[in-house]
Amino acid sequence: MNKSKVHTPRSFVEKIYLKGELYPYLKVGMKRVNLTPTVEVIMGETMKTENPPVYLYDTSGVFFDSQVKVNLAKGISPLRSDWSWEGLQIETVVDKCGIERKQAKQGTIATQLFYAKQGIITPQMEYVAIRENLNCKELGIDSFITPEFVMKELAAGRAVIPSNINHPEAEPMIIGTKFSVKINSNIGNSSTSSTLEEEVEKALCSCRYGADTIMDLSTGSSIYQTREGILRNSPVPVGTVPIYQALEKVGGVVANLSWEVFKETLIEQCLQGVDYFTIHAGLLSAYIPLTRKRLCGIVSRGGGIISQWCELHQKENFLYEHFDEICDILARYDVAISLGDGLRPGCISDANDEAQFAELKTLGELVLRARGKYVQTFIEGPGHVPMQKIKENMDKQIEYCHEAPFYTLGPLVTDVAPGYDHITSAIGAAQIAWYGTAMLCYVTPKEHLGLPNKEDVREGIMAYKIAAHAADLAKGHPAAMIRDNALSKARYDFRWRDQFLLSIDPERAEAYFKEGKLLEDDYCTMCGPNFCAMRLNRERKSNVKGK
Amino acid sequence: MNKSKVHTPRSFVEKIYLKGELYPYLKVGMKRVNLTPTVEVIMGETMKTENPPVYLYDTSGVFFDSQVKVNLAKGISPLRSDWSWEGLQIETVVDKCGIERKQAKQGTIATQLFYAKQGIITPQMEYVAIRENLNCKELGIDSFITPEFVMKELAAGRAVIPSNINHPEAEPMIIGTKFSVKINSNIGNSSTSSTLEEEVEKALCSCRYGADTIMDLSTGSSIYQTREGILRNSPVPVGTVPIYQALEKVGGVVANLSWEVFKETLIEQCLQGVDYFTIHAGLLSAYIPLTRKRLCGIVSRGGGIISQWCELHQKENFLYEHFDEICDILARYDVAISLGDGLRPGCISDANDEAQFAELKTLGELVLRARGKYVQTFIEGPGHVPMQKIKENMDKQIEYCHEAPFYTLGPLVTDVAPGYDHITSAIGAAQIAWYGTAMLCYVTPKEHLGLPNKEDVREGIMAYKIAAHAADLAKGHPAAMIRDNALSKARYDFRWRDQFLLSIDPERAEAYFKEGKLLEDDYCTMCGPNFCAMRLNRERKSNVKGK
Repeated sequence: MNKSKVHTPRSFVEKIYLKGELYPYLKVGMKRVNLTPTVEVIMGETMKTENPPVYLYDTSGVFFDSQVKVNLAKGISPLRSDWSWEGLQIETVVDKCGIERKQAKQGTIATQLFYAKQGIITPQMEYVAIRENLNCKELGIDSFITPEFVMKELAAGRAVIPSNINHPEAEPMIIGTKFSVKINSNIGNSSTSSTLEEEVEKALCSCRYGADTIMDLSTGSSIYQTREGILRNSPVPVGTVPIYQALEKVGGVVANLSWEVFKETLIEQCLQGVDYFTIHAGLLSAYIPLTRKRLCGIVSRGGGIISQWCELHQKENFLYEHFDEICDILARYDVAISLGDGLRPGCISDANDEAQFAELKTLGELVLRARGKYVQTFIEGPGHVPMQKIKENMDKQIEYCHEAPFYTLGPLVTDVAPGYDHITSAIGAAQIAWYGTAMLCYVTPKEHLGLPNKEDVREGIMAYKIAAHAADLAKGHPAAMIRDNALSKARYDFRWRDQFLLSIDPERAEAYFKEGKLLEDDYCTMCGPNFCAMRLNRERKSNVKGK
Repeated sequence: MNKSKVHTPRSFVEKIYLKGELYPYLKVGMKRVNLTPTVEVIMGETMKTENPPVYLYDTSGVFFDSQVKVNLAKGISPLRSDWSWEGLQIETVVDKCGIERKQAKQGTIATQLFYAKQGIITPQMEYVAIRENLNCKELGIDSFITPEFVMKELAAGRAVIPSNINHPEAEPMIIGTKFSVKINSNIGNSSTSSTLEEEVEKALCSCRYGADTIMDLSTGSSIYQTREGILRNSPVPVGTVPIYQALEKVGGVVANLSWEVFKETLIEQCLQGVDYFTIHAGLLSAYIPLTRKRLCGIVSRGGGIISQWCELHQKENFLYEHFDEICDILARYDVAISLGDGLRPGCISDANDEAQFAELKTLGELVLRARGKYVQTFIEGPGHVPMQKIKENMDKQIEYCHEAPFYTLGPLVTDVAPGYDHITSAIGAAQIAWYGTAMLCYVTPKEHLGLPNKEDVREGIMAYKIAAHAADLAKGHPAAMIRDNALSKARYDFRWRDQFLLSIDPERAEAYFKEGKLLEDDYCTMCGPNFCAMRLNRERKSNVKGK
């Protein structure tokens, strides 16, 4: 990432770090926007009022810290390499490429869920508590989000901190309905396009623009190398769909997939540092005939692979059959499971059908099995759903899946807008997040049409940051409205630079503004100076104050 | 508009016209997409199934008809110039520029509401009934939307057909909660940018991309000429905010505004053919102090002007004082009133406050006064509203405003995304339209930052077409899902061209698809051929059929 792109002076926005109390060595990074004062002319007199700085959640890690030099070939600094806590027992192993990796000692467990259930607060738990409480302490806002609260939510399975011990570069973040809504960016090459460097660059751009996690969905060649490049540079958790690599290992022939090759792939990725896996273990062979009456059948790639395997072999889904073994492996690295919805609807007509909800029920059963093994778990959701059917998805997910966090792809609220599906899906995403979904998987403008480029990734992330933040506001997250109010006050005061810095994409806001005119004047080209309502309002106010 | 831009062969998509029954001379234009057959290979045998054509609502008028040559200087053909019905009495007058215009004879009324109340079905009513029932007749779907139903909705004040007798170029369209949700595109130059030609071009682009009405918000010079260019070429109703031109007439000095100059402006615009006026008659001087505790005060341009005028003169809003006279004027041309919300909230913090709802109550009072004069009326709404407060806006509007149609600007569900406010507002727009809003005023990516260019207009319209269509689906409009299903079936069949033609922006969908690869192959670069779930699904299906 080119540092020079962050061209705002350090005095206006800077990376700062807050310390932990339970773990004083914690350095919780965030952005601080230092605002300029409000200047008012009241009855001829000039008044200046200071505006307090605003802290912003920052997913870009050290990439926003101008003090840190990054060497992409070497990777970023492993933030969590020395973190430990009561009971954790780690050993070193060497992976297939001769690189030293970590795992919990045989018979022990490394997961946040395991320690939370014992009432142990890990550094991760304190870290996310500090991270969630943006501006609260400074503004005297009483927040319910404490390290104890985080621990209890984890213990109840209502929240997840994906945190593979082999990905110490990642900052802890929490996925749960009582915390700020998170967004995921999908990247990864397909067989027909994009290089390793492009994918690493997309991953870094994703973090820079605000993705809370990234999923590497690579299906082409060099899967291991691409993933290594991404993991060693990613300050956010990384997810994958291991069946994709397993399929590559058997030459793309679905019939040749087996539990053995899948297991080998799982361990390889656990050792490398993947933080969560999408596993389509809930797609039972009995559900496949339910998709025959659908307009679009099965549209999940993993779901397509598994259902074809089941039918070719006339056997039950091997991911379901070996689910307990999967959990035993993941527990040694603290890899979380994202239970995939292989039967998610691929069009409005197929939404909320029998196939979809049958699988969701099985996912609920698997949640309990995973919890029994102390593996952190969340649930993937649709897809394409018209607005009036979105609520039912959330309600059923809570009912069937024992309050495990929900992680949805959109949903897209109509099928008619290829080229604009970041918008069709942001509409559904905002709603379902308001209803309780904890993380939103973004959709880019290229959905259904092609692989996204960097600009598409940006568009997708911004649409989803909007959806997530809108849901935080609607749910009443203690810190959410502070940013809106600070930005709107800046807008009303004509403090343009402050407005840009508080916005989700300062570069774009400033560029659009400048397209029309100079930065210095107190109006934009939209209304011109004579018709600017805010200006009229300020004039009125400066005349009538005290009346 | 350059016809060559519509580069799809006529045999795939064409302009067709449906006849009226009550008024056989009616030619109701729409697009027909002629689809290719579905080709399946089942157990080695190739099967072909025809797909019926799909009719699409078309706002682009003759601009999509390749048989019609348009001369922008002359204007398009006046579709409604010969339309008449029982009781209508029209006379000819000459306007300030010497052009012949029409008005209802002294003491008579030209409005659709007047005739609806007498049980008379006008050509407009039959036209919109045919227009709304896309595909219903052809597919044997029983639709409740008949000319009688349209008449009854108009008579009850629950729907409006803006249809100035001096704008015969405009096709009738209906704004009401029981009909498809409509969208408006705002155009118009400000004092600091854009030319007459650019604004006419933006107006035509708006219709081409799908705007159901356009509002000319010009505030700079040449207001009359810009408006004439737009009106004579616009196949959709045109709205304005007459106070803008009135203010230009008094040199931009708010204190010099008066009822007399406003009245003169109204008549000028009625004669020219404007179909609806935003009039901020509900902003009473008593409500102004309620805005003082706001974070952003008054953000409506009209609201800012009126409140400043009230305070300078220490008088009541002259639009409120002269409201009955306004109605008497408008009734002679059938200009509808869009009651402006001068106190709409301009940020999340100000949403649903006392000032906003006080004005809304007065708008409800004015609805009854306008109905007493047979003037068609609808109500403008916010603005900036967080998701959890949107429903209250709709509920209160229905309660206070006697079921008059609601016409909202967004609402934007967060303040933090300048540069992306087409998305923040499409999220709110989709929701409020689902709850019952009849028309959505678009927001472009340039909102809060500058005047939109043609590409911004396109982005804004597409975001709003998505929101409107999503709401049609959610409300169960009889014709809405046909298009989604046809597109999704085309997607599943790999009928790419059909998919593009059924999408809201065929050019963009096709361009994005082509960015990656050739049109002929059965996959896109997103997943590549090996990981295409739809392909896997079809392979499964072709193997297991009949099992």
